[in-house]
Amino acid sequence: MQFSSSLLENAVNEFAKLPGIGKKTALRLVLHLLKQDSEDVEHFSETMSRMRNEIKFCQRCHNVADADICSICANSLRKQEMICVVENIRDVIALESTQQFSGTYHVLGGVISPLDGVGPNQLNIDTLIHRVQKEGTSEVIFALSPTIQGDTTIYYIQKKLPAETKVTTIARGIAFGGELEYADEMTLARSLQNRLPVDSYVSSR
Amino acid sequence: MQFSSSLLENAVNEFAKLPGIGKKTALRLVLHLLKQDSEDVEHFSETMSRMRNEIKFCQRCHNVADADICSICANSLRKQEMICVVENIRDVIALESTQQFSGTYHVLGGVISPLDGVGPNQLNIDTLIHRVQKEGTSEVIFALSPTIQGDTTIYYIQKKLPAETKVTTIARGIAFGGELEYADEMTLARSLQNRLPVDSYVSSR
Ligand SMILES: [Zn+2]
Ligand SMILES: [Zn+2]
Repeated sequence: MQFSSSLLENAVNEFAKLPGIGKKTALRLVLHLLKQDSEDVEHFSETMSRMRNEIKFCQRCHNVADADICSICANSLRKQEMICVVENIRDVIALESTQQFSGTYHVLGGVISPLDGVGPNQLNIDTLIHRVQKEGTSEVIFALSPTIQGDTTIYYIQKKLPAETKVTTIARGIAFGGELEYADEMTLARSLQNRLPVDSYVSSR
Repeated sequence: MQFSSSLLENAVNEFAKLPGIGKKTALRLVLHLLKQDSEDVEHFSETMSRMRNEIKFCQRCHNVADADICSICANSLRKQEMICVVENIRDVIALESTQQFSGTYHVLGGVISPLDGVGPNQLNIDTLIHRVQKEGTSEVIFALSPTIQGDTTIYYIQKKLPAETKVTTIARGIAFGGELEYADEMTLARSLQNRLPVDSYVSSR
């Protein structure tokens, strides 16, 4: 693509760095911004900068937060003794959108995957174990993607949890190998309702 | 979608205002920015603000420019006596990307379309007529989308141009009703090479 304005070219190149955004799409987005009021573009830019600079990660559950503790952990109406373990922030958003879960979360940051160089130490596993021990958590619900890596992670963590903690996984309404975040809200909601003890799940495989 | 951070939610909503970007895509883009260095996100934001605040429109051809006159008009190696008339900035970028045209441009800002409320006065037609008269332009090449509105626009402008000006249109390698900006570079390059006098083109319809 040839540009007669470096201001335009730079803006297109910045958008084209984003995942899934090609040069033609980037140009379309930039020309859209060019047509907006100056204040609106300023607001767009400031919102992105603020998001990156001011966002925090909850010290308890590692979810994104506007303060040291996220709004879910800070909500006394939620069942603080129930923890749903997920891989990433997107999964929290997907599960929250079902409006079926009233406990808290713990964001691992991924799953154990030796081939990708991801071991237990790269994930927020230690903080989960300590949290369950310290808080006397009554139930840990695993909502990980139904893959070999997800199962490995469940097995690894389960062995480290106190024996008295109830450990379940969401029902596998999702096809094996599927990705949690793309499941529809109904499937996710049902999977939560029909959650199983991990023991029965692992032995059935 | 339910968010536990208003900083994240605001950023997603800003991206989702862009054309063709849904909530899920917006979330993917924002989470990508969240993973980047703070300086990189700052640079992204500043580039968009600068683009919107500092970009100019060429006083001669109405193309986007970094100065009062665009880099194409300011380039003495280009044939200043040859004007390619296009609808919008995207068309300039598409034609420049063929690297086959060494003249200048004139951006109309659209085509005459009474049903959409676009008459000659809403377009940069007067400045084109004055420019051709003042500069003694030798050739005006129309590179408008091959639609009824494009043809109407060519016909309207042609009548107002000095009789001695050669007036051509790019060859219609593009299907009637197609959009110029989506044509591949080869088709666009050939269309320019095989351009026709407007008289022969209009009578053949
Ligand atoms: Zn939290
Ligand atoms: Zn110019």
